[in-house]
Amino acid sequence: MWQEQNNKLYRSFTFRDFSEAFAFMVQVALLAEKQNHHPTWTNTWNKVEIWLFTHDAGDIVTDKDRNLATAIDNLR
Amino acid sequence: MWQEQNNKLYRSFTFRDFSEAFAFMVQVALLAEKQNHHPTWTNTWNKVEIWLFTHDAGDIVTDKDRNLATAIDNLR
Amino acid sequence: MWQEQNNKLYRSFTFRDFSEAFAFMVQVALLAEKQNHHPTWTNTWNKVEIWLFTHDAGDIVTDKDRNLATAIDNLR
Amino acid sequence: MWQEQNNKLYRSFTFRDFSEAFAFMVQVALLAEKQNHHPTWTNTWNKVEIWLFTHDAGDIVTDKDRNLATAIDNLR
Repeated sequence: MWQEQNNKLYRSFTFRDFSEAFAFMVQVALLAEKQNHHPTWTNTWNKVEIWLFTHDAGDIVTDKDRNLATAIDNLR
Repeated sequence: MWQEQNNKLYRSFTFRDFSEAFAFMVQVALLAEKQNHHPTWTNTWNKVEIWLFTHDAGDIVTDKDRNLATAIDNLR
Repeated sequence: MWQEQNNKLYRSFTFRDFSEAFAFMVQVALLAEKQNHHPTWTNTWNKVEIWLFTHDAGDIVTDKDRNLATAIDNLR
Repeated sequence: MWQEQNNKLYRSFTFRDFSEAFAFMVQVALLAEKQNHHPTWTNTWNKVEIWLFTHDAGDIVTDKDRNLATAIDNLR
């Protein structure tokens, strides 16, 4: 579940191992490039954390972020 | 199911879309690099075809290919 | 250099190793998904071969293919 | 240049765009999986930051981290 905190949409994902986590990251990368809207994200082994916010709107949450969040949720 | 034909292990995979197919390819790439044994493979949209054989053994099927095939099957 | 043969744009790319070849493939995947137009491609170790054609137009070369070819060339 | 700070090796990388940054991440992922040693890393658009440390040794810098750092530097 995405949470809105500090003007960002945040969600954490946990996978079986690094391979599954990175495969997910590739799918998110494809979405991000397609929507021309990119996450701030971090990964350690099987964990991926994503923060979505719109730099051009003054670092707040906009529909661009909500659309990307929905698309990410539809991956799985 | 892998088939042995023309001294190669062959298997075809079909996915929901390109994103899923390419995420699978990334996982295979991680396995291949880890095992230092790489496939000949082709992709069109949601379809991935893989041929495994061992160049250094004279282009025949060896345990290197069987091990990679098993590891690929364990991805899903 | 892309060549038009059998109603397809074809080009072969050679890299230093698998890692470089696959990094290139990821960049092509990002372009393909962004343009919603995908290649038929094959890889063995450090070699990537790409065929571009437009299925919806009857498997001939269209501007979609020329645009993707140009974008691929601009990667490097 | 890697810096050792807070018992971690840290380096920041900047690329032309997201596509180049993510292609680099894929190459790092292949190295990490091959060495069975994975980074903590973050990405925003064209920027990648990497922290290397060894969890099993008590979250300090070990030769595993130095080896991965060297392999990452040899990518480019």
